[in-house]
Amino acid sequence: MINFQTLIATQSARICMAAGDDAVLEFGLRRAQGIDGALAASRAAYLGGCSATSNVLAGKLYGIPVRGTHAHSWIMSFDEETEAFERYAEVLPNNCVFLVDTYDTLAGVRHAIEVGHRLRKRGHEMVGIRLDSGDLAYLSIEARRLLDDAGFEKAGIVASNELDEHVIQDLKLQGATIAVWGVGTRLATSYDQPALGGVYKLGATRKDDGTWTPRVKLSEQPIKTSIPGMLQVRRFENNHGLVADMIFDEITGVDDARLIVDPKDPTRRKKISSKATARDLLVPVARGGEVVFQDEPVAALRQRAKRELAKLHPGTRRFMNPHEYPVGLEPALHELRSRMIDDARKRAMSMAEIE
Amino acid sequence: MINFQTLIATQSARICMAAGDDAVLEFGLRRAQGIDGALAASRAAYLGGCSATSNVLAGKLYGIPVRGTHAHSWIMSFDEETEAFERYAEVLPNNCVFLVDTYDTLAGVRHAIEVGHRLRKRGHEMVGIRLDSGDLAYLSIEARRLLDDAGFEKAGIVASNELDEHVIQDLKLQGATIAVWGVGTRLATSYDQPALGGVYKLGATRKDDGTWTPRVKLSEQPIKTSIPGMLQVRRFENNHGLVADMIFDEITGVDDARLIVDPKDPTRRKKISSKATARDLLVPVARGGEVVFQDEPVAALRQRAKRELAKLHPGTRRFMNPHEYPVGLEPALHELRSRMIDDARKRAMSMAEIE
Repeated sequence: MINFQTLIATQSARICMAAGDDAVLEFGLRRAQGIDGALAASRAAYLGGCSATSNVLAGKLYGIPVRGTHAHSWIMSFDEETEAFERYAEVLPNNCVFLVDTYDTLAGVRHAIEVGHRLRKRGHEMVGIRLDSGDLAYLSIEARRLLDDAGFEKAGIVASNELDEHVIQDLKLQGATIAVWGVGTRLATSYDQPALGGVYKLGATRKDDGTWTPRVKLSEQPIKTSIPGMLQVRRFENNHGLVADMIFDEITGVDDARLIVDPKDPTRRKKISSKATARDLLVPVARGGEVVFQDEPVAALRQRAKRELAKLHPGTRRFMNPHEYPVGLEPALHELRSRMIDDARKRAMSMAEIE
Repeated sequence: MINFQTLIATQSARICMAAGDDAVLEFGLRRAQGIDGALAASRAAYLGGCSATSNVLAGKLYGIPVRGTHAHSWIMSFDEETEAFERYAEVLPNNCVFLVDTYDTLAGVRHAIEVGHRLRKRGHEMVGIRLDSGDLAYLSIEARRLLDDAGFEKAGIVASNELDEHVIQDLKLQGATIAVWGVGTRLATSYDQPALGGVYKLGATRKDDGTWTPRVKLSEQPIKTSIPGMLQVRRFENNHGLVADMIFDEITGVDDARLIVDPKDPTRRKKISSKATARDLLVPVARGGEVVFQDEPVAALRQRAKRELAKLHPGTRRFMNPHEYPVGLEPALHELRSRMIDDARKRAMSMAEIE
């Protein structure tokens, strides 16, 4: 639940950053893992910034706007492309986004324009066209020109076809005139990083007298050594945005409230200005077997994600060699962890000596 | 349903090929997409060759054997590793696979041996140990030596930690003494290719008089041009194994029953010997809105997958530059498709002339 949805929400945020002010539609259903995988993907994609989903059930369950266009099969079930557009326009005159690449993309744009004119005579406006293959930079520029010349300046161009944040960024650099991006496979599977390695580790155990014992797991791979304690995350920010996150242990308490230690390299420490404000991020979801958390609507989570992302330094948000956002251990927790690692290693060494 | 499960069954088959006669356990639950994503992954992994799953619900629903070991949290909830093993052995004396890398892997092996001796005195045998981090080649060889020297020649070594077919193949080349492979993330997400691009395209439409009209979709990307018709797949094999698959159209019928045309390069044609036997692979699942297919137990599907895989030439099964298994169009279907593509292109061109 946490690994997958965090991954998809992050991927969605990255894609939406690349798209800038353009809308991004999530089209991932057919590549997701089963029904609840797809529902989770649609929810997380919306939370991360997508404007809508083609997953109708997710729309119904979570109140996510539903968007989509017709399929190639609609066009193929008629003898003529124009007839297919015409029949669609009869049924949904205010919702015409014509998919134009079934036979020849620019011929398809001309057919859409033909039907768009007839639609206009009947008092409706064509919403746009969709490109689903080929050179999206070239085709969108040519399609835009045809639409504009025909008096359809307001008809938008929707594009889809193996899009991700890198392709979108590149298409925008090339001057593609795409207004809406339909992103499926590479969003719903987080294609370039299909798993997030989050794990549960035991942080502390409770004795009968109610006191807590912190617990640690070692590893020859430093990244797999756990952080002991009853952990909380404190986020610092100032007027310019987010400053750093501090992980501290609620059992030990906070020793120096304005210093963090990099767990990967303890010689790297960062002082946090006293002017930065602090708030704790983790809230209890269950206590003593009872759910104590009131879930929020996904639209509210989406707004919060957007607000928090805007507070990240642009260098942290960039795709190429991003600046690493500072996350570190509070000094007392760093000391506790170091001591526990030393103790556990000593015990393991004495075991080796016995042999 | 089809894309994801085909992908995972294939990935499972590849991993099991690398493992050879060793058992592979599917441990992917925590990285799958939700409950039914995980169930589908466990089912497909078993179908593709895995021996068992750690997903207890999948075991219950599909009759898949369930296997697993204890977690690091079991060890961490005791003050001493030996005590943790001891307590586990008390409850499950015939199911002891001790996870030895919580603090120091080889010290952990020594603790497991200590408890294994006491277990043996009580009339039970330690099943094995599990390694979950570090240099699995080195550690498995050292652990094997320690176990053998202590008289535990039959205790097996289970390994896990970001395994896939390439890592397993490499560990075996290095002489790792691992008997059972636990594979999670890279199996359940098909990490190195997280999506299979299967799509539904309209093949033919039915007229009121009951006759069928084949339909085609063009594309500037040849791979996205569809194959028209009511398609069936015929598989040819001889005494040495599988020879080729032929796609043909049940409307047009078969013109040359022993020739296939490569759809990516029609100058490449392959003659199939008259000695090869043929069978059609596709069976109807629904007809006229009614399910007409009787599902088989997953164990039967698993046996069939194993049988068919064994018939593939080793060159087709290898990981590096595999030989491409021949799949082509029956000549009458190739002709139909070529003619329909030509016709559709001509119509699109005449549209461009009108402008």
